[in-house]
Amino acid sequence: MEHTKGFQELTNVDDALRIFLNAVGELRIKSEVTLPQKALGRYLSADVIARRYLPSIDVSIMDGYAVRSEDIQNASRERPVNLTVSGESRLGSVCPLKVLSGQAVAVATGSMVPAGADSIAIVEQTTALTGDKVAINAPTNKGQSISKKGEDISPGQIALPKGRRLRPEDIGVLKALGVSAVRVARKQRVAIISTGTELANSPSKSDPAKVVDTNRPILSAMTQSLDAEPVDLGIVKDNAARISAALKTGMQTADLVLVTAGSSVGRRDLVPRCIEALGKPGILVHGIAMRPAMPTGLAVIKGKPIVSLPGFPVSAIIAFRVFVRPLIAKLSGLPEALDPTAKAVLKERISAGQGLRTFVRVAVRSEQGRLVAEPLKVQRSSVLTSMINANGIVTVPETRSGYDAGEEVGVSLIGEISSIRS
Amino acid sequence: MEHTKGFQELTNVDDALRIFLNAVGELRIKSEVTLPQKALGRYLSADVIARRYLPSIDVSIMDGYAVRSEDIQNASRERPVNLTVSGESRLGSVCPLKVLSGQAVAVATGSMVPAGADSIAIVEQTTALTGDKVAINAPTNKGQSISKKGEDISPGQIALPKGRRLRPEDIGVLKALGVSAVRVARKQRVAIISTGTELANSPSKSDPAKVVDTNRPILSAMTQSLDAEPVDLGIVKDNAARISAALKTGMQTADLVLVTAGSSVGRRDLVPRCIEALGKPGILVHGIAMRPAMPTGLAVIKGKPIVSLPGFPVSAIIAFRVFVRPLIAKLSGLPEALDPTAKAVLKERISAGQGLRTFVRVAVRSEQGRLVAEPLKVQRSSVLTSMINANGIVTVPETRSGYDAGEEVGVSLIGEISSIRS
Repeated sequence: MEHTKGFQELTNVDDALRIFLNAVGELRIKSEVTLPQKALGRYLSADVIARRYLPSIDVSIMDGYAVRSEDIQNASRERPVNLTVSGESRLGSVCPLKVLSGQAVAVATGSMVPAGADSIAIVEQTTALTGDKVAINAPTNKGQSISKKGEDISPGQIALPKGRRLRPEDIGVLKALGVSAVRVARKQRVAIISTGTELANSPSKSDPAKVVDTNRPILSAMTQSLDAEPVDLGIVKDNAARISAALKTGMQTADLVLVTAGSSVGRRDLVPRCIEALGKPGILVHGIAMRPAMPTGLAVIKGKPIVSLPGFPVSAIIAFRVFVRPLIAKLSGLPEALDPTAKAVLKERISAGQGLRTFVRVAVRSEQGRLVAEPLKVQRSSVLTSMINANGIVTVPETRSGYDAGEEVGVSLIGEISSIRS
Repeated sequence: MEHTKGFQELTNVDDALRIFLNAVGELRIKSEVTLPQKALGRYLSADVIARRYLPSIDVSIMDGYAVRSEDIQNASRERPVNLTVSGESRLGSVCPLKVLSGQAVAVATGSMVPAGADSIAIVEQTTALTGDKVAINAPTNKGQSISKKGEDISPGQIALPKGRRLRPEDIGVLKALGVSAVRVARKQRVAIISTGTELANSPSKSDPAKVVDTNRPILSAMTQSLDAEPVDLGIVKDNAARISAALKTGMQTADLVLVTAGSSVGRRDLVPRCIEALGKPGILVHGIAMRPAMPTGLAVIKGKPIVSLPGFPVSAIIAFRVFVRPLIAKLSGLPEALDPTAKAVLKERISAGQGLRTFVRVAVRSEQGRLVAEPLKVQRSSVLTSMINANGIVTVPETRSGYDAGEEVGVSLIGEISSIRS
């Protein structure tokens, strides 16, 4: 018998997400401006269009001589071609010289290629002669060892596309293009509420029956990882009036509201009815065909999304990954970042709930050059260390009853696969 | 002919790294203390040992009744066993009741399991009767629906191991264990110097022959990504006295020094001789069998590592990944974080330099459910956009001349593989 936790009917995960995101509707993306050097990890809310050439002039990418290739097309070590060195292109300065037939100009890596030259004879293929002469020992092709003006980026090009999460090299591009302010998605404000009369913020010897609330710190950190901003609304006792008040505060101060525990259909599960009482359209999906996190509720009240997450930490984490992450992406108008995934060979069979999408915590490691995934023994969603000891999650689709030992499966990597260096 | 950029002899990448890291020697790891809520992404510099039980008492993980399983071993829906409800275990309070034979105590998810009980009869399998009676409609197994004291973590256990980069769920564990201060690796201070008379901090119309220095912003951001702290020492002109002074400043103010450009063996390459003049043992490796970044130099002066990186941005990025990342890991006493890797099918042949470890930029995307990697057309290391347009790097070993189209290869993922959500 599949345990459905008292739900009469379960909604498929994909349907649930679609219904929810559709109800959130189209939003005007809020953006803000920041400095390039503060933009690492932020999401671009608009294309960065180049307004200049990179490089801004033709630049030599080798030390040598700027030459006209036609002058030296028959040059060889046996029959070098002698050219007259008319000067030097100084690093960082515009070179006023023009290379005429029979002439060469000395260049360094990074210096401007003077007018008239079409290629660089690299210093290793030349011999300096007395006076102002140089012997060229090999021919060049047109364009050889020159980085042409605009080769990297030209005006009008999209240098970095909207939605991109900025990487280190992107910061370099922004600097190179002279972008002094970059428009990024404003961080979504995520209100986080924990419900439960048993909860406390820290353990206490004198009060051993209190349970430390781990959900708020975890969800806050997950929110930060998505470049969003947690708004901690604290612990609320299992009391309808207090829960309702906290939800209202969340709706007023944040872009979306997360509330953990009390999410199911029992007598003590106050959160769903508190959400329903707040307005329309209310709870759109309640009870989802997944394990863990079946008693998740997805609601929209007056355009503000509210996610009612189960209280067990592993369930809350999984529900966050499945529903809150794409929600934040949509609210930001951005593509959803996917976890890095890898293929790994299962060490043991995974059994999954029939008709449920099942998320199985695994430990991934490298064995003889291939990745293997070992399902953790403890899969109870109340056991937080089962998440700590995992660095991957295998998703078993609704249509399968599991995966066999030896099968190669996709794994979402949630932690580092480390190698110890001696 | 393989172009060796004037080096007489090239050192294999693995040998170069081993020689370098060995010369850095054993270090006393510097650590610092921070708050759990500020520790996301930091590296633990010591094991976190649990000093308490998690959970701290036996806790019910379901709503129902705490019972003695022997009392109800024959219970069924047809022949329920009636028990006397002696009271309720209130959420967050120590339950003073003891369950005697024939008795039950009402419990909620998260409440303490009273003494005497060994399992929870879930509410769905009970029927409340008049008075203080409850009918139990199914037997329980010992331990059923109870999270035992210490099930998650017990005192003396390593809750989080040294070297771990802290994830959101880890912050929850720290809070649950009452850890108020967490010892993490002090951020390594990384001095960053760019050399080049042609360099400027931003583009200027009036000075078009100046080249914007992208290496400092990029290497600063890469340093930050590794949870280390960049110390920007600015641009230095191609002048031995100035370069030497900047290197000395770096050695005094930072744990390691990065210096870009002027790293090769030409007349204008001043950096290697400036490093050599600073002290012993000096440059250990110069000229590495890799592409790009062949003219990388690895030095240790009086115990301080100095990395001389090529000036082209792509070369500097690759050399940072190959040498600086493991160096920072070693200086921090931590395992090196590996990139997430994926298997992808090559769309086109990759040609590699014989005897060189070759790093090829690729664009990875998902096609019909499998990952494919397309080598970027532009692989010149002077072209920064070739790095921007890549989200993966394929490493071709020294022993191979390339990979064929259709081969499945390992890809280090350096950017997100995004899916656009409609």
